[in-house]
Parts: sequence; C-alpha cells; structure tokens
Amino acid sequence: MPKLILVRHGQSEWNLANRFTGWWDVDVTEKGVEEAKEAGRLLKEKGVFPTVAFTSVQKRAIKTLHLALEYCDRLWIPETKDWRLNERHYGGLTGLNKQETREKHGDEQVHIWRRSFDVPPPPMPKGDQYDPGNDPRYAGIDVPQTESLKLTIERVLPYWESDILPQLAAGETVIISAHGNSLRALVKHLSNISDEEITGLEIPTGQPIVYDFDENMQPGERYYLKDS
Amino acid sequence: MPKLILVRHGQSEWNLANRFTGWWDVDVTEKGVEEAKEAGRLLKEKGVFPTVAFTSVQKRAIKTLHLALEYCDRLWIPETKDWRLNERHYGGLTGLNKQETREKHGDEQVHIWRRSFDVPPPPMPKGDQYDPGNDPRYAGIDVPQTESLKLTIERVLPYWESDILPQLAAGETVIISAHGNSLRALVKHLSNISDEEITGLEIPTGQPIVYDFDENMQPGERYYLKDS
Repeated sequence: MPKLILVRHGQSEWNLANRFTGWWDVDVTEKGVEEAKEAGRLLKEKGVFPTVAFTSVQKRAIKTLHLALEYCDRLWIPETKDWRLNERHYGGLTGLNKQETREKHGDEQVHIWRRSFDVPPPPMPKGDQYDPGNDPRYAGIDVPQTESLKLTIERVLPYWESDILPQLAAGETVIISAHGNSLRALVKHLSNISDEEITGLEIPTGQPIVYDFDENMQPGERYYLKDS
Repeated sequence: MPKLILVRHGQSEWNLANRFTGWWDVDVTEKGVEEAKEAGRLLKEKGVFPTVAFTSVQKRAIKTLHLALEYCDRLWIPETKDWRLNERHYGGLTGLNKQETREKHGDEQVHIWRRSFDVPPPPMPKGDQYDPGNDPRYAGIDVPQTESLKLTIERVLPYWESDILPQLAAGETVIISAHGNSLRALVKHLSNISDEEITGLEIPTGQPIVYDFDENMQPGERYYLKDS
C-alpha cells in the first residue's frame, strides 16, 4: 500500500541562531547532519524504504534528503526539487533575530506574525540583502514578497495534487524532505486540522512522520516512525 | 551557448583497494570526497554553473555530483539518475583484486579484458555475491552479466541522444557525474576517437572536462576546466 514519509530538515544554522529564515538558503548544522543521518538509519531499521523523493530547492532540505537516503541505501531513487515545497516566506522578518524582533515590535505582534493563520509578515523590502528575488533558482517564478501559512498552503497543495499524489496512487513509497510550514500545509490537509490548531502544531526536525494510505487513497492516522 | 561538463567520480574504496568494481556500489573515500568538493569549487571559481545534472544510480557518482553541486551553490538544479550512465559491468571479475587476477589469468588475458574494445570479461556467475541482479534499483531492467566497452557504449549513447542532448540543445549547461567507461563512451563519440585509441584514454577522477557546443550543436575541442 502507498506510504508517505515526511521529514523536516535537520537543525539549520538559523534555527540555532534563532533568526527568521524563510527562503534564505542557510545550511544545516553538524547536529542537523546527524539528525538527517539518524532519520535514514531509522528508515532502514524499520524496513521503510522510499522509492520516490521530493524536496524543496533549499539546501537544508536537500542535504537532509540526501543524507537520509544515503543512510537507508536509497541514494539512487528519483528525486524532484520544487520551490513549492519551500519554507514559508518570512518577508521583511527574514534574517532578523526573533528576540530582537520581539523587543522592537512587541511580543504580541511577533506572536501574530508567527502564529496567525492568515496574517503575513511585512513584505520583503526591495533590495533587501535577504531578498531571493534575483537568485537564479527562482528565475521565471513569481517570487512572493511575504507569506502567511494560508498563502503557503495555497502553493503547497496544488503541487501535492499535481505531482506527489499521483506517485502515491501508483503505489510508491514517497519521501518528502521539507520545512516546518510546508509540512504543516500537508499535515493540515491529510489529518484535517483546523486553521486555529495548525499554527500551533510543531513538526520536529529530522523525525520521520508516516501516513499509510488505504486502497481508496485515504490516509490513516499519522505516526512517528520511531514509535511504530 | 550549450556547455557540457563531465566529471568522473572521486576516488572510490575499490579504486584504492585495486579491485574491479563495475556495478558494485562502493562508496567514495575521504580523498574522493575532497576531489568532488574541489570540482565544485573549480566550477564556482571559473563561473561555470551547471543548470541540469545527470548521474548514474551508483553511490560514488551520485555523491560526487551532490558534493560538486553543493560547492558551486547549485544543489537546487534538477538531477536525473539513470543506470545507463553506470560504470561498465565487469562480469565475473567484479570484486577481484587486479593483481591477483593477473597472477591467476596472466597479464595478457587481464590486459585484454581491461583494454580490448569488444571482448567482455567472463559473465557474472549466478548467485555471485557481487551480482546486482536482485538489487531493487535494477528492478525491471535487463541487467547485463558482463560488458565490453563496446557494449557499454551501446547503452550510453542512446541515453545521451534521448535524454541529455535535448537538454543541451535547449541551451542548458549540463553536468554528468559518471564513471571511467561511461564517460569514455561519451568522449569517444564527441571527440571522434577510434576504437583502438579509446581504450587507453584515462579520465582522471574529480577533474571537470568541458565541451562547448556551437550554434549547430557541434562540440568543440574538449578541455580540462582547470586549464581554461
């Protein structure tokens, strides 16, 4: 039966530095590398072998995927990278330290930006050092200037429907290595979680989450692979 | 203009152990990892940025590709893995030490197996520990039992024509991370090298080789990127 494995990238340099990251292309830390390897070892130990892989165009998710696949001996499976699996774009908050942002804008405002479903942060200023607008990986793409979780969902789900779901329907074991908010988008959809609840759902780094699908392509309860 | 970059995987564990490798999926050594990173650094330094990547389904070529792409900041480009870019299948010689094989079969016979254009080594014995026949990555593929360079060329070139050349014709900068013999197949074709000469042509590990194509899709002289 089809199986979906979701993995959030291992710890990144800016997770560690407590900065808003979004589309900025930070690397994983040494700890993040270890988390990704451990995810691969767990897949192998549990005998859950991905046959098709998807990831974003961001280094922290791609490297996590490559390490996880290497450690379950599946480096050779097909992989597709797409910006629609990117992290939520944090707009003008990108690069800022979360604590400093709280001090400047107040706890309440930062809480709204981080945890409201449909209020996007202020847009990325033109010419900002963290604006990915001129990055060649986004050539031909209408790069957002900021995104709420709602806006993130609105680009993740069409990609899910058009590119990922058909692979599951064909019986593949699909692994998606992505980000806190692009994975929230999928978990909200698959586990039918409300707008209010989803913003508080934490997806741990490097911890494979699994959905088993039935013959009607209905997902079962999600579970952590480590608990199975 | 279209540009083709060929990279032979960095040193592998069996390059180092002087064993016939073929389709056995050995890893790169620490030196091989460094060679791959250095290839990426050179691409970046020379401003030659791949836009599309191809590799085999063998770990040593895939990891070399990933490291080279990471070190020129192009981990996000599309990549395709295909068994037709695999190393030549060394048949029953797979896993044997080259020196021991010379002692057993004689220098002349080993020279013929290694360096003749169209004499394949003896076939892989059924049930051999190095037979990739039951590996899931080759499911649905008519896995050869042995290959001469000629037979290798006969599966590399159709793939070149059907999948890689169209990308170049579309103006992409294509990188291929592959193996001594699958790259010989391409260099023979592109540089019009005779059957006799090609078997002696050494492709160094981790050293990017470049072809620039003209507007009629004719390749120019090949050159080492380091010398450009």
